[in-house]
Amino acid sequence: MNQEKHDTPPSTWMALGSAPTGPLTGYRILEFGANFTGPVAGMLLADQGADVIKIEPPAGDQMRYQASARGGVSAIFISVNRNKRSVVLDIKKPGAIDAFNRIARTCDVVLQNFRPGVVENLKLGYEDIRKLRDDIIYVSISGFGNHGPYSKQRVYDTVIQGVAGVASSQRDPDTLIPAPVRSALADKVTAYTVAQAITAALLSRERTGKGQHLHINMLGAMLSFWWPDVMSKHTLLGAGASPAGSVADGRPIYQTRDGYIIAVCVSDAEWKGLVEALGKPELIEDPRFRTQRDRGEHIAEQHEVLKDAFQWRSTEEWLNILRGLDAVSAPVNTLDKLCDDPQIRASEVIWQGEHPSAGTYRQPVHPITFAETPAQLRRHAPALGENTREVLLELGFDAEEIARLSEQGAVIGA
Amino acid sequence: MNQEKHDTPPSTWMALGSAPTGPLTGYRILEFGANFTGPVAGMLLADQGADVIKIEPPAGDQMRYQASARGGVSAIFISVNRNKRSVVLDIKKPGAIDAFNRIARTCDVVLQNFRPGVVENLKLGYEDIRKLRDDIIYVSISGFGNHGPYSKQRVYDTVIQGVAGVASSQRDPDTLIPAPVRSALADKVTAYTVAQAITAALLSRERTGKGQHLHINMLGAMLSFWWPDVMSKHTLLGAGASPAGSVADGRPIYQTRDGYIIAVCVSDAEWKGLVEALGKPELIEDPRFRTQRDRGEHIAEQHEVLKDAFQWRSTEEWLNILRGLDAVSAPVNTLDKLCDDPQIRASEVIWQGEHPSAGTYRQPVHPITFAETPAQLRRHAPALGENTREVLLELGFDAEEIARLSEQGAVIGA
Repeated sequence: MNQEKHDTPPSTWMALGSAPTGPLTGYRILEFGANFTGPVAGMLLADQGADVIKIEPPAGDQMRYQASARGGVSAIFISVNRNKRSVVLDIKKPGAIDAFNRIARTCDVVLQNFRPGVVENLKLGYEDIRKLRDDIIYVSISGFGNHGPYSKQRVYDTVIQGVAGVASSQRDPDTLIPAPVRSALADKVTAYTVAQAITAALLSRERTGKGQHLHINMLGAMLSFWWPDVMSKHTLLGAGASPAGSVADGRPIYQTRDGYIIAVCVSDAEWKGLVEALGKPELIEDPRFRTQRDRGEHIAEQHEVLKDAFQWRSTEEWLNILRGLDAVSAPVNTLDKLCDDPQIRASEVIWQGEHPSAGTYRQPVHPITFAETPAQLRRHAPALGENTREVLLELGFDAEEIARLSEQGAVIGA
Repeated sequence: MNQEKHDTPPSTWMALGSAPTGPLTGYRILEFGANFTGPVAGMLLADQGADVIKIEPPAGDQMRYQASARGGVSAIFISVNRNKRSVVLDIKKPGAIDAFNRIARTCDVVLQNFRPGVVENLKLGYEDIRKLRDDIIYVSISGFGNHGPYSKQRVYDTVIQGVAGVASSQRDPDTLIPAPVRSALADKVTAYTVAQAITAALLSRERTGKGQHLHINMLGAMLSFWWPDVMSKHTLLGAGASPAGSVADGRPIYQTRDGYIIAVCVSDAEWKGLVEALGKPELIEDPRFRTQRDRGEHIAEQHEVLKDAFQWRSTEEWLNILRGLDAVSAPVNTLDKLCDDPQIRASEVIWQGEHPSAGTYRQPVHPITFAETPAQLRRHAPALGENTREVLLELGFDAEEIARLSEQGAVIGA
C-alpha cells in the first residue's frame, strides 16, 4: 500500500446514494436535539457511516433558518446535517411518543441536548428508553449540568465562553478588554467531545454487551479543552513555579503592503532567518532577543521592531522570501479567498456540489482519511421530514399506522 | 438509577494506582510524538482506560520544559500527559528500533505526528509496523498532508490558524485587524478529531478484525471545525442567498463597575428582559431593535446604546438582576479567579492534587461521565523514562536484554 495514496481525501468522498463504508457502518443513532452541539456530533458519526435519524419538531430545527439561506435551508444547517435522515414528530400529539419509542428501540444511541428535565417530563429519558432496549447508549448534553447556581439558566455559546475563561484569555493585548472567540467554540468543542465519547461507549458495549448513560456539560468540556496551554500559569499552585509568558501575549500577525502575514519564530535559527529576511541582521545580537527566553520576555518589543519592515512588500513576496530562509510563515487568508489558497486546493479538503434545494455549495470533507473504511458524503442535509415515511416503513410501521399517525399530526412528511 | 447521581464527575475520578475502568480498558496505544497534538489525543484515550505508552527521546518531549514549571516538569506537560507511561528510547542507538518494534507489536494503535517522511526513514512507518502486527491501527498526523506548496514547511499552530481563516475571523470589529485565537486551537482540534478517529477505527476492527492506516492533516481538521458557522456566508455559491450578519460582528461583552459581563439576547423576550433591567424600556419600541433581524443588523448600535448603563453596577449585581429577568448573562471570569466561580465549584469539574515532583496542581477532570465505565486519574504525568523498565519487563524483555540495551544507551530509565 502506498502512503501517498491515502493522505489526500479519497475519491470515495462523493458517494451519493451509496451504502455506507465508514467505521460506524451498521450503527443507528437517534439525534434528538437542535442547533449546534448535538447536530455537529451527529454529523461526524454520520460521515463515518452511522445511520443518523434526526428527529425534528414540525417547525424544524431552528438552525434551518439561521443566517445565510437559500431554497428554504440555511448554510449552517447544510454544513452540520449532511448524511442524516430527517423524521418529523409532533411530540404533543397522541401516538408521537409511541412512534419515538419504536424508533429509539431500533437505535444503538440516543443523543439529546435539551435542558435538564425536559426529556424526563416527556417520558423519553434514559430510564424510559432503557426499558425498551437494555443496551442503549443514551447521551445527555447540558450547559452546566444539573447542579449549581447557573444550572437552570439558558445557555448560549458565549455564556460558556465567559464562565470558562475563554473571553478573558482573548483580551486585547493593549487595552486588556476581553473578547469572545468569534465562533461557537463551546458548542463545537462539546460536540467533538461527545462524538468521541459515543464511539468509546459503542466500543465498550461491543466487548461487554452493556449500554450506559453518558453525561456531559458544556462548561466541563470547554474547560478541559481550554485548560492545558491557556491555564498553564494557574495550574501549579503555591510558590516556586518558574514564571512564563502567556499564550495571550503572542503577536504573530504583521501588516504587509496588501494584507497580513503570520510570522513565527521559536528557535534561534528561526529568529535569525526572520530578521535576515527583513533586512535587520543587527537584531540577532540585540540582547532583548538573543535567546528564546529573551524573546519570550519581549514579545511586544519584538513586534514593534519588525512591523515596519513588513509593510514594504506584499504578502506573497514575503512568503516566498521567508520560505526560502527557513522562517516559519503563513498567509492570513481572508474568508472570501480561503478556498483559493494553493495549499487548500492541493490538499483537496474543500468539496463543492449541488444541494437539491439550496443549490451550489461547498464545505470541508470529513477530516479523517480512513484507508480501509472511508467516510463518505452519501446524502446532502435533508429537507424537513424528507425521510419520515421511509424510516417508519423500514422500522416496521405498516402503511395503515403511518396514515393514522399522519392524520393525527403525530408524524409529518409521511 | 438516579440521573442526578451521574451528572457530576464521579467520585471515581481520583483512583491513583487502580486498574482502569474506562471504555478503552484493554487497549494499548503507542504514542510517538511530542508537543500538543499527539499527546492531547493520547490523554483523552488514557483517561478512558487505554494503556498509553509514551515513547520519548533522551531529552524528553520538549513540552516538559515549556512555560511555567516546577520540579523539572511544566504545567502544560502535566496537563496533557496524565495517565500515561513514559519509556525513553534513543532511536539512533543500536537495538532501539528493535525495542520500538517489540513494543509496537503489542499495541493496538501507533500514533505519530512527525513531519512526513520521518517515520518511514526510521523504518517505523505503517508498512514496517503492519508487518509485525497485521491489525495495527496506525495514525499519521501532519500539518498540511504530503502534497502542496506548504506541505514541507514547519508548522506551528498559528500557521494553520492563518491559512484556515481563523485569524481573519477573529479580526477586531473596529480596526478589522486580524488576530489569532490565543490558544493552540489547531493543535487541540486536531487532537480531538484524532481521538475520535482512533476510537472509531478500534470499533471497526472489533467487528471486522482489520486494522488500517489513518491520515489527518491539521489544515483539514481546522477547516472542518471552523467552517459551519464562521464560513456560513461563503458556503452557498452563486446568487440568491439571503444576506446574514457575521458571527464576527457579535459584541456581547460589556464593562461593569468592577469587571466585565456577557449579556446575550436572541429572542424578543430576552431583549425585553435586558433593556428593562438596564432601565431603558424605551428601546423595546426602537425600530433598530424591534425584531431579532433588526437587532442583527444593528449590532454595533446595540452595544453603543447599552454600554453606559452597565457601568453603574458591579458584575455580581448585574448578574443577580439579569437572572431574575430572564435575560441571558454570565460573568467574564478572569483566569486567576476562574476556579472560584460558584458554578465551577458546584460542577466539581476542577480537581486538585499532588504531583510527585511538581507539587500541588489542579486541572479539569475528564469531560465525560460514563455511568458504567468511568474515566479515572490512575497516574500523574510521568517522569522522563519513569516506566521504561516496567514496560520492557511486562512486554517480555528479560533482565539481561534490558541491561544490555541500557548499557548501549538504546533505552534510558531502565
